[in-house]
Amino acid sequence: MTPLPLALTMGEPAGIGGETTAKAWRALRESGPAFFLIGDPAQCPDVPTTMIEAPEQAAAAFATALPILPRPLAAPLRLGHPDPANAPAVIGAIEQAVQLALAGRVGAVVTNPIQKAVLTAAGFRHPGHTEFLGELAGDGGPPVMMLACPGLRVVPVTIHVALAEALRSLTTAMIVEQGRIVAAALRRDFGLAQPRLVIAGLNPHAGEAGTMGREDIEIVAPAIAALRAAGIAARGPLPADTMFTPRARAGYDAALCMYHDQALIPIKTLDMDGGVNVTLGLRIIRTSPDHGTALDIAGQGLADPGSLIAALRLAGEMAASRARESAP
Amino acid sequence: MTPLPLALTMGEPAGIGGETTAKAWRALRESGPAFFLIGDPAQCPDVPTTMIEAPEQAAAAFATALPILPRPLAAPLRLGHPDPANAPAVIGAIEQAVQLALAGRVGAVVTNPIQKAVLTAAGFRHPGHTEFLGELAGDGGPPVMMLACPGLRVVPVTIHVALAEALRSLTTAMIVEQGRIVAAALRRDFGLAQPRLVIAGLNPHAGEAGTMGREDIEIVAPAIAALRAAGIAARGPLPADTMFTPRARAGYDAALCMYHDQALIPIKTLDMDGGVNVTLGLRIIRTSPDHGTALDIAGQGLADPGSLIAALRLAGEMAASRARESAP
Repeated sequence: MTPLPLALTMGEPAGIGGETTAKAWRALRESGPAFFLIGDPAQCPDVPTTMIEAPEQAAAAFATALPILPRPLAAPLRLGHPDPANAPAVIGAIEQAVQLALAGRVGAVVTNPIQKAVLTAAGFRHPGHTEFLGELAGDGGPPVMMLACPGLRVVPVTIHVALAEALRSLTTAMIVEQGRIVAAALRRDFGLAQPRLVIAGLNPHAGEAGTMGREDIEIVAPAIAALRAAGIAARGPLPADTMFTPRARAGYDAALCMYHDQALIPIKTLDMDGGVNVTLGLRIIRTSPDHGTALDIAGQGLADPGSLIAALRLAGEMAASRARESAP
Repeated sequence: MTPLPLALTMGEPAGIGGETTAKAWRALRESGPAFFLIGDPAQCPDVPTTMIEAPEQAAAAFATALPILPRPLAAPLRLGHPDPANAPAVIGAIEQAVQLALAGRVGAVVTNPIQKAVLTAAGFRHPGHTEFLGELAGDGGPPVMMLACPGLRVVPVTIHVALAEALRSLTTAMIVEQGRIVAAALRRDFGLAQPRLVIAGLNPHAGEAGTMGREDIEIVAPAIAALRAAGIAARGPLPADTMFTPRARAGYDAALCMYHDQALIPIKTLDMDGGVNVTLGLRIIRTSPDHGTALDIAGQGLADPGSLIAALRLAGEMAASRARESAP
């Protein structure tokens, strides 16, 4: 059976998304996975494109042209200069991709980066891309952000808040809930029968038996006990500084980290360009490149498609895993 | 002129120090730098040793035997089982090494790891190795901890305290003082005429213009302004997660980080075994391997000497740089 194609959203059309999309199509046209862009052909002037009317037409066209499910821009495209008049198309592309995934007509949604301030100016009322997807396709719990590169997957339990606020807001319940979502996703979408989680300590040396902060004893350790009681192979709290050595990384499938930089520093230090952002805890599969719209270099031919290519490949693998899991 | 030898302290004799010392001598006996152990010959039974009475005898002996300036243990050596009766020898070795360095008879002090609890039980009144060295050989300011591996040097401005306490205690003055010490040391001991410092933001994305915490605007940025006003090439606050990519690392000589894991995660992720701990802000040069006593594997032949070898090599290079700087 031919795998379902992937839906790629246009993202901010004034950014590098069109360029990286075209480059990704060139890189993947022979090997797959097949994908189509929900966008405007003006975004990808440098590759052959073919308009499609339905996702089912994408796979056959993919080897010879980039398939596009048209979502025309309202205002002319000016690279580097976002226009709020195009916000409805940007948002509509995301909504359409999610609807197609929920209907089982695409294997996954891959999103090009958006420029949040432009959407906000046009009336977008969500804190970000991920929260919007949570509203469109949530699964009862919060969306969980995972960053993945070859050999490492990390999950920041608290994300885009001041470090002091991360300390104030961290709870045992949050760690348990996200640990459960991560373990379930690793089973269903990554083909890992018994995923191994490690949980970072909040404090240096994981608090060294309480001599450097009590949070690891009072907040983190009880979460690990609860995850283990639920049958999840979870270890920790581990000293964060020695958790990401090559030897340590070989011993687990995902690392839950207590705050943004604890998770993002190791993965970006190891592999900046091939990192992929994966949203877990949705009813659909969603990945995205781990970079922004890069308005400053849009249209110069300098954009590196590595992260988008990795996001498309990972989405294809996740969709195949989920299809196997769901097979009778 | 023959360079001065390096003084290597015994550290905790029940740990892996003797084994890594012997392995380091084998690795360095032909290439140098020449060093001698202040310790007991029982620590290194597997290599030829020669007792010396003064540092000046070390260089000539080094190619054929490990030179030892004797500091006999009071209680028999039992690997894996520290004995507080040996604490005076452990402490005495450190004091002697520092005195020799202050007297200009050794180029640098390299310390094997100690077991602090054992020393404390025997009356040691210092929070740690580094603070003890600060008392013996301080230079008016605090000792500053730098971790170095090939291609990266990091300085945690706050160190072994709970993360919440690190946030409470961080001040502009601390960052400025440590930035000055680091810049001065990079000039004198690393041969960098105009060292380039980068300073990490405390919050995710360095606070993103104050939307995720005010500390980067109110505490970190003024420190950078003060360092620049003092003629030091300092940049920041930079988002910590993208500071340690290969491209970013090429743009600076040392990174000041705001808390322990922000500094230690990247360097240990990159190069766990070759990391070296360097204490700046002393009147002497001091390096040490970036690991502990590893009592659990002492005597099994498993200890990796990589970090000690790197610490000895770096101490030799720093001593040569300082000698050139001091030459008329």
